[in-house]
Amino acid sequence: MGRLSFVGLGLGASGITLEGVDELKSASTVYLEYYTTPHEPRLLTEIERATGKRPVVVDRDFVEDGNRILTEAEGKRVALAVLGDPMIATTHNELRVRAIKKGVETRVIHSATIASAAASASGLHSYKFSRTVTVTRESVGRLTQAYHILHQNILEGAHTLLLLEYDTQSGEGVSPADAMAGLLLAEGNFKRGVVSEKTFAIVLSRVGREDAAKAAGGFESLSKGEFGEPPHCVIIPGRLHFTETEAVSAIFAIGESDVRGNSDGVLRTAQTLVPKYVSKTRKALDSVRNRLGPQYEPVVENAELYMKDAETFLANGEDEMAMLSIGYAEGLLDSLGFAGVVRIDW
Amino acid sequence: MGRLSFVGLGLGASGITLEGVDELKSASTVYLEYYTTPHEPRLLTEIERATGKRPVVVDRDFVEDGNRILTEAEGKRVALAVLGDPMIATTHNELRVRAIKKGVETRVIHSATIASAAASASGLHSYKFSRTVTVTRESVGRLTQAYHILHQNILEGAHTLLLLEYDTQSGEGVSPADAMAGLLLAEGNFKRGVVSEKTFAIVLSRVGREDAAKAAGGFESLSKGEFGEPPHCVIIPGRLHFTETEAVSAIFAIGESDVRGNSDGVLRTAQTLVPKYVSKTRKALDSVRNRLGPQYEPVVENAELYMKDAETFLANGEDEMAMLSIGYAEGLLDSLGFAGVVRIDW
Repeated sequence: MGRLSFVGLGLGASGITLEGVDELKSASTVYLEYYTTPHEPRLLTEIERATGKRPVVVDRDFVEDGNRILTEAEGKRVALAVLGDPMIATTHNELRVRAIKKGVETRVIHSATIASAAASASGLHSYKFSRTVTVTRESVGRLTQAYHILHQNILEGAHTLLLLEYDTQSGEGVSPADAMAGLLLAEGNFKRGVVSEKTFAIVLSRVGREDAAKAAGGFESLSKGEFGEPPHCVIIPGRLHFTETEAVSAIFAIGESDVRGNSDGVLRTAQTLVPKYVSKTRKALDSVRNRLGPQYEPVVENAELYMKDAETFLANGEDEMAMLSIGYAEGLLDSLGFAGVVRIDW
Repeated sequence: MGRLSFVGLGLGASGITLEGVDELKSASTVYLEYYTTPHEPRLLTEIERATGKRPVVVDRDFVEDGNRILTEAEGKRVALAVLGDPMIATTHNELRVRAIKKGVETRVIHSATIASAAASASGLHSYKFSRTVTVTRESVGRLTQAYHILHQNILEGAHTLLLLEYDTQSGEGVSPADAMAGLLLAEGNFKRGVVSEKTFAIVLSRVGREDAAKAAGGFESLSKGEFGEPPHCVIIPGRLHFTETEAVSAIFAIGESDVRGNSDGVLRTAQTLVPKYVSKTRKALDSVRNRLGPQYEPVVENAELYMKDAETFLANGEDEMAMLSIGYAEGLLDSLGFAGVVRIDW
């Protein structure tokens, strides 16, 4: 009976698992697709040596079309060897679904993938990584979504992994410097104070390969760095636990005082605005209080109550309610100005 | 010269990579720590078979203490074999840092870890997973942080992986039913509409092992399921792309209409409140408009302007600004009530 196996090759030339080796050995045909990720030159020979099988190297179109693979897998065992973990790419997931629908048995053999290995290699706590961002050549000039996700992650104190696209067929890709420049460009547009030349980041190149390289520092110095051949990824840490600071310092051989999280300076909208509006409203209130007749006392009292509420909500992280309250307090006061009751100097 | 290697064993009995096998072969001593994750019974014999080395099985205290490993690694090659990817656990990271500080060379050999393999096995898009949550026996009765992270993820349409703790030494752990019950309990406390008996979830058991099992469905039916031996994990999807629906349907052999994302019903605070407050304020404004003298015209005009602003901000996802605006509009109007200018029926 036929079977279609998706076998992960992990990260280096020898990242295939023993289970993966057995699966390739038992397959009638082994296809290998490695065009979207640069690979070690000796990958092919390593697979041949370990499995006794010579993989048929195919391109992305062949896998996306998939018809030949699916037809063959109906009658015999076909294995598709894929760099990293085999089901990370949507293309392979879709091929698997088509196989299942045709009644072909499928099997998935996992291996290391950059998403977890990068976290693991960085010395940062894996569970503190939030959404990963892929930076493509198309997106790098306008990193709106990446900037938004990074902002969210940093606000939560979480770390962000940026995977930088590289296409081995065209030989074009995104360098760490490109990605950092793209984020600084987005910063110029959105001005949320998410990144600057001083943002502390980690660059990991060729993770899991013999020629792996790593660097850590500020955007400014990293942008001038030479990282050699792709693949590269960039990690932008959120808030650091002291054991993370210690680990990054040891692993990247830099002083602990040079290891910095990026969450401290980044504030939520309400954290920036509520204190500003409270102080402004309090000042305005003080300036009109003595000029208002007793009928306006309830207005003043309520404005004060809602300012206090705003501060309490903010302290509890209930940002929307804090903004509602301070808006309400301002509105109460401003209404008197609009109605000509009193002139308010904001 | 000495060296301390951290070698990932991946997920099954044969999840070690070829590079890992070579590293264990060249080590003078191989330690194996597998107490925090249940493993396949034949793991030890598989490692022996592949490497010719009989690992010394050690417990967590031995690794946490680490003194013997570190001392030995100063003079010879010591390998610590670890289930999954070796640096996911903080303990191993800390041991690595201590080794680096002692001047001992360290090496990390990655392999598959549940965090990426679960995403990959589920048919969901890996890049849509946000922060992973570990549910411990201590936390399961009060899943405040897990509930908060799940809420955030679902609001963003992102998927959440819950890793369920299991301790092989005590034989105690968190079952999928425990985790779901814990989340429903948190729902009872926080009432954000994040989970219910109908929440669609995926349970993956023993991922990457020969006896792997999987199920998908609503909390209610999954809570009654029998999933066998640990480890287990639960995935709660956010918003589903149609290719994800198709993949989950095929992989879990359930109808596409039974595959549901969980983001649609979950609203942000501002999404719930702003439309309600706008409609309330508009009605109140209409009811007083004809009873107000011309001097109050600017108040009415501004209240209307700010209500429109609130709606625009909300549509653009600027929740805090939407709340500020609707609060301000309400305040403008209410001020007239407090000052006795007009009676407002809210």
